[in-house]
Order: sequence, then structure tokens, then C-alpha cells
Amino acid sequence: MYPSLTLILGGAASGKSAFSEQLVDSTGKPRVYLATSQVFDDEMRLKVEQHIMQRGPDWTTIEEPLDLGPALSELTADQVCLVDCATMWLSNHLLAESDLDKARTDLLTALRDCEAQVVVVSNEVGQGIVPDNALARKFREAQGRLNIALAAEADLVVQVTAGLPLVLKGQLP
Amino acid sequence: MYPSLTLILGGAASGKSAFSEQLVDSTGKPRVYLATSQVFDDEMRLKVEQHIMQRGPDWTTIEEPLDLGPALSELTADQVCLVDCATMWLSNHLLAESDLDKARTDLLTALRDCEAQVVVVSNEVGQGIVPDNALARKFREAQGRLNIALAAEADLVVQVTAGLPLVLKGQLP
Amino acid sequence: MYPSLTLILGGAASGKSAFSEQLVDSTGKPRVYLATSQVFDDEMRLKVEQHIMQRGPDWTTIEEPLDLGPALSELTADQVCLVDCATMWLSNHLLAESDLDKARTDLLTALRDCEAQVVVVSNEVGQGIVPDNALARKFREAQGRLNIALAAEADLVVQVTAGLPLVLKGQLP
Repeated sequence: MYPSLTLILGGAASGKSAFSEQLVDSTGKPRVYLATSQVFDDEMRLKVEQHIMQRGPDWTTIEEPLDLGPALSELTADQVCLVDCATMWLSNHLLAESDLDKARTDLLTALRDCEAQVVVVSNEVGQGIVPDNALARKFREAQGRLNIALAAEADLVVQVTAGLPLVLKGQLP
Repeated sequence: MYPSLTLILGGAASGKSAFSEQLVDSTGKPRVYLATSQVFDDEMRLKVEQHIMQRGPDWTTIEEPLDLGPALSELTADQVCLVDCATMWLSNHLLAESDLDKARTDLLTALRDCEAQVVVVSNEVGQGIVPDNALARKFREAQGRLNIALAAEADLVVQVTAGLPLVLKGQLP
Repeated sequence: MYPSLTLILGGAASGKSAFSEQLVDSTGKPRVYLATSQVFDDEMRLKVEQHIMQRGPDWTTIEEPLDLGPALSELTADQVCLVDCATMWLSNHLLAESDLDKARTDLLTALRDCEAQVVVVSNEVGQGIVPDNALARKFREAQGRLNIALAAEADLVVQVTAGLPLVLKGQLP
């Protein structure tokens, strides 16, 4: 069975995570939160803890910064999983000096094989001025390619701006 | 009576101010321009003077960089007010080291209590690469929260891209 | 005869070029690729060569970084031309210290006078944090003004996000 995949796009602090959590809550299914962030400093720790408090106790949380395949393969068809977020995951791979094309292909395969309904949150990072440094430009390109691949695979793509959804592909349930 | 609130979102030089001024002009009501910019250098002075010339003499201009409450409370139900812009206002509070959560809450209260129709212009700043410095990241977060709060309160939310409107909430008059 | 003009907007790596090429391919007309990029380093050379390979042999390629007028004036009504992209063209003029207002006006005149159908690709660069340096801010303003002018002139304006089109003006064929 091919499970449905949803992609939620938005800028930083656009309300995309809150919107995604509402979407997942509305399924009424057991909820899994697949957290990709690595906590390096107090600023990030604070964000992670705020997010956990906001979600409440009805979520199972899995933390996995790099290889999402094993976690996704263990999900069952009655579950819904929120991957938050693809941008942090890509950033972890960039820092780990992974082959970004392989990482992207592997993620797409894992999403295709996953039996649960999956909602992936991802950032738009390409609408500012060209960054000064080559690493940021490389990241911008890789994020763009990842978003294009996820959007092509997804049944539903929603762009969130100031907390408001705009459907780019498919239809909101 | 609860007055209608409109939020106009857009990037830098997206045509959001020109679009907002046309929207305000189309009401046929006495127009108040609530300017939030502080002029620090020639680059900003030039922009302010260009904007005043573009608006023409049919506008009353009020300059207030920080506390918009008093100005908004003096407006009457027959007026329409353009707040240009929430991003500059937020930036002024950041530089003044204000409590940004309190400033946002106070602004929302003042908008709710205002008797005039209000159009607020605000920037989208979260769709580039993560900024290097912590102050810029803090601003990005605060701008996001402000836009989400304004959008939740507004009857009409319009995103302007290359001068073209896209309605995210409500309906254009 | 007034030819139709299409503007394709999008962030970096948003899929806007691929979408534009499909749009041009779908016309069934002889295709001209008007490339505006100047190759300064290996990173850019790689991008140019990847793009040429992706387009395939059915395209005539013209390289012109600054004055697009002569190339546009030689096109005929049976042709379709993809200008890729207006952002690189503007950047070339900024580096050449051209009068940007004059360059924009000249480009608009050349597009108006051109007999072929033209699709112009352009970037959105104004949705990040305000850049540190004055040149980047100047570019952001000039890019905004250019996009507004092109959008006002165009019959069709499409914003591409993660490879997905959103029509801002007109109608997709």
C-alpha cells in the first residue's frame, strides 16, 4: 500500500510547525514526532523544549538527526508521523559532510516504503539575497532540490505564511 | 464596534506599500498615514521623502516609531489608517531593547480597540538562509510571531509579490 | 503586433528554470535560450554546463550578459525565447555600474518591441533579513522594481515553489 505524504513548506517562524501539528492531530491517529534537530546550544535547547511543551503528552517522540530510514520503516499503517524538519535534517547531513544527493534519494525511498501517513515540514530558504559563503549557497541548492523532490512525491503540498495555509498541490482534508 | 483590520505581507520592494495605499485610497475615507520609520541616515531619509511624494497631499501623516497606542486610540470610525510598517516598528523596539512579547500584545490590544479601519503593512523576512548573528535570528522569530498574531486578528490578509496581490484570508473589497 | 510576455518568479533552486523550459517546450515553436550569466568561476561554469545538458539540443543559445535589446529585436513571431534570467542580468548591470533605472526601462522597451513570445525568469530576493551591506540592499530594491515592472507588463505571471506553479496573473495555457 502506498501511504499518503504531505509536505508543509514555510519560512522561519511562519507557523508551519503549529499548522502541521494541527493537521496531524486532526487525523485522530496515534501520533509520532520524528525530531531531527541536534541540540548544540542553549538557543536550540530552548526551542526544542518549547516545542515539546506545545505538543503535549499525546505524542511519541523519536529523535534522529541523520538516518530516518529505520524509524520510518518501523511505523505502522494506523500511525501518523510528523517529520520536523527536513531542513534541520539536511543541515545535519551538510555538517556531517554526507553525500547530499544520496541522503536525499535514501530519504525519498524510506518515505515511499513507509506504511504510516507522513507529514514532512521543510523550510524555504532561497528567497533572500545570495549568501556570501559557498557552504550556505550549497545548502540553498540542496534544500531547493530536496523540496522539489518531496513536492513531486507528495499528495498534498501546503505553503504556510503567517500561520495561514496556501495549497500548492492536492487538497486539504 | 469592532473595526476591520487588514494585513498586507510582502518582501522588500515587493510593491506592498503601493498596493496598500491604493487599497486605502479606494475606501474614499479620510486617510491617516502612521509612519513608524526612524531616520538614521541619508538612505532612509531618501526613502521616506520618496514615499511622502508618492502619497500626495491627501494624507495626514503621523510619525511614531514605538508606541502606536495613543495615535490609534485617537482615530475615529470614519477614518482609515495605514500603518507602514510593522517591521520597522518591531525593529525600533528591538533596538530600544523592549520586551518584544509585551510590545506585540500591546499593539494587538490597540488595534482591537481602534475605531478606524486599519491596514498594517508587514515584511516577510524568514525565507532566506539562517542569519549568522543572534540578533537577526531573534528579529526573524519576533517578526514571524508578530505576523502570525496580526494574521489571526485580521479580516483580510494579502500577500504582495511583484506588485500582484494574493489573498491568504478573507476577500478583497 | 504585441507579443505575449510571461514572467516566472521563484527563489533560488525553486525549480523555476525547469518549469519555464517545460512551458517553452509546450509551445511547439522554435526555441531560443537567451543566457545572461557571466562565467567567473568553476561553480558558475558547472551550473551553466548542467543547464545546457538539461535543455538538450533543440535549443538555440544566445549569450548576452548586458544589452538584451539587439538579440530580442532579431527574434521573429514564430519563435519563443526564454530569458534566463533577469536577476543575473540585473546583477551584471550592478557590477558594470550601469544606470539601473535606464537599464530596466530599456529592457521593458525591448520586450515590448520584440515580435516573439518571451518568457522571463526572475528571482525573488526580498524575503530574507535586511542584508548588511549597502550594495546588496541596492540590488534588492532594484530587483523588486524590475519584478514589479515586468509583472505589470506581463500577460502571465507564475510563482514557482518547490517546482509547483502558482498563477499570480493571467492563466496557464
